[in-house]
Amino acid sequence: MEFLTLPAMKERPLSSPVRLAIVGATGAVGQELLHVLKKRSFPLASLRCFGSERSKGKTLPFGNQEIGLETLSDDSFKNIDIAIFSAGSQISRAYAPIAVRSGAIVIDNSGAFRMDPSVPLIIPEINPHRIHDHAGIIASPNCSTTIMLMALFPLHQAFGIQRVVAATYQAASGAGAAAMEELKEGTRAFLDQTPYTPRILPFPYAFNLFTHNSPLRESGYVDEEVKMLRETRKILEDETIWINATCVRVPVLRAHAEALNVTFCRPLCMEKALAALQTMPGLTLLEDRNQNRFPMPSDASGQDTVFCGRMRKDPSFPNTLDLWVVGDQLLKGAALNAVQIAEQLLRDYL
Amino acid sequence: MEFLTLPAMKERPLSSPVRLAIVGATGAVGQELLHVLKKRSFPLASLRCFGSERSKGKTLPFGNQEIGLETLSDDSFKNIDIAIFSAGSQISRAYAPIAVRSGAIVIDNSGAFRMDPSVPLIIPEINPHRIHDHAGIIASPNCSTTIMLMALFPLHQAFGIQRVVAATYQAASGAGAAAMEELKEGTRAFLDQTPYTPRILPFPYAFNLFTHNSPLRESGYVDEEVKMLRETRKILEDETIWINATCVRVPVLRAHAEALNVTFCRPLCMEKALAALQTMPGLTLLEDRNQNRFPMPSDASGQDTVFCGRMRKDPSFPNTLDLWVVGDQLLKGAALNAVQIAEQLLRDYL
Repeated sequence: MEFLTLPAMKERPLSSPVRLAIVGATGAVGQELLHVLKKRSFPLASLRCFGSERSKGKTLPFGNQEIGLETLSDDSFKNIDIAIFSAGSQISRAYAPIAVRSGAIVIDNSGAFRMDPSVPLIIPEINPHRIHDHAGIIASPNCSTTIMLMALFPLHQAFGIQRVVAATYQAASGAGAAAMEELKEGTRAFLDQTPYTPRILPFPYAFNLFTHNSPLRESGYVDEEVKMLRETRKILEDETIWINATCVRVPVLRAHAEALNVTFCRPLCMEKALAALQTMPGLTLLEDRNQNRFPMPSDASGQDTVFCGRMRKDPSFPNTLDLWVVGDQLLKGAALNAVQIAEQLLRDYL
Repeated sequence: MEFLTLPAMKERPLSSPVRLAIVGATGAVGQELLHVLKKRSFPLASLRCFGSERSKGKTLPFGNQEIGLETLSDDSFKNIDIAIFSAGSQISRAYAPIAVRSGAIVIDNSGAFRMDPSVPLIIPEINPHRIHDHAGIIASPNCSTTIMLMALFPLHQAFGIQRVVAATYQAASGAGAAAMEELKEGTRAFLDQTPYTPRILPFPYAFNLFTHNSPLRESGYVDEEVKMLRETRKILEDETIWINATCVRVPVLRAHAEALNVTFCRPLCMEKALAALQTMPGLTLLEDRNQNRFPMPSDASGQDTVFCGRMRKDPSFPNTLDLWVVGDQLLKGAALNAVQIAEQLLRDYL
């Protein structure tokens, strides 16, 4: 792989501790960002939190401090080194360029810029060497992509991925904190046999599941499924890889699971595959075959590591492996990966 | 396809109305059997219901009647024409042969005899011509197999199935009425933040999911996954078909969903595929692409028909189609299919 460095960006001053801004601090990912920063003792010179008009005047706890919530303006990013955006594509499109012009490096959790050629799409365990290819904005991938690639990357290095058939079991958190509340409220109403009308998600969620609620394309695939394909190709820098996904929202709160059927270009060796998974940082193999015990959302919720298991050779096609991955959508799927990007930036600059 | 008829069985006297026995009448499937028989006005001369020792002395409502529950003995099946077994493999293994020796035809919902060469495995919409190949026992397939094949059979006729990569989203009902209760109770406890220890299923089920709780084999596949392969081959009478499944228990009450990636032997034509699905009896295409609205467990619960949708051509492999199916596990997955087998028997005999 080619190693590209844009000197202009690398030479941009970035010092530790960091003057950090979080955009979307009251959301499900924003809340996790605060926890992750504190837990990892991220070197902060200052922390500013931005929310919507509704959150004006409120404060957010951060360790022993209370951080006042601010609303965004054209002046918000003055004297900010890094701004992490987790407020959806619209806010990112409107304010990330302003933040860059103010001198900040933007780490964007939204889908606004991921496929932009000038925006590196980074999973620090996978492609940290691409982090400096930016023109001010670095994107964190879609949660389903990140969780999948944490297990696929070491296998790709070992055997070369040709095609993946993926079926996802996606949590409410991907649709935000309000969707998590809706799942709980709707479920309680179901159990109490009282009527409940969903407001966030398009369909009743209690003991139910449905196609991922992203726009459906002419091809019959929803955006989430297309993201898994395109982002994988960009991150692994291989336009020949195919990801064929079916994305499903299941009544789980905050961890995504994925059933992956992976066909490789080169001969598959199960021992080598196992070794590859076991040496991947940020990935944990969780299997107790005697107990039929494999990763579950309840294992992954609140955990930094992505879990994998159920590795088995698929006898129905050459060089094909079945694999099951589960990861916290809010952590490695979003907040943790964004903070890891910031940490990587610091390591490289300092 | 070869058309086998065992004259000895076909000549066995079977008259309408039928003297019917239900074994496992208090279970989740047993209860649905009573509803299905009543709803379809199945011609009954008499109905006897068998349960475990615990249910002795109790009665079950059937229309305006109350049917007394009996416990099984060697004499239970005297003067019974058809006995439907839904009490698990152990009971079927012990009592189905007794029922046959007593002169009854057994329709077995358990996995005890499905792969026995002398036992036809019947989905009446698919292979009714095999129904008389029996030596006293006719098996109803595993719920995941039946729901999948309702959509795959017309496509198999049109293009010939080579390989299916399936991921299932299976409901609690497949593990019985107590598992359904456990899902509800465990979920309420989770919402109330009170401790809850599962007794039926091996893992906490509230807002969680896990590998299907059937025994894990040396190959890494669980029994449920192997059943989907073997039963499909038997029903479609084609030992070359591959079904590679990942079976997952999700927190849904009574309808299974399945994401199917299907590769065909012959060139795939989408129009012809659509027409094939639309003309399959017992199958309903449910799609509103403008609303991103496809079949959900909440659509299928309590419905006889199996729903399919999300049909799209998979660009990652030749002659390959993605499809999504959802069916009521207790109805077409078990009780309805068993009653349809009984109806088919009557049609053929009378």
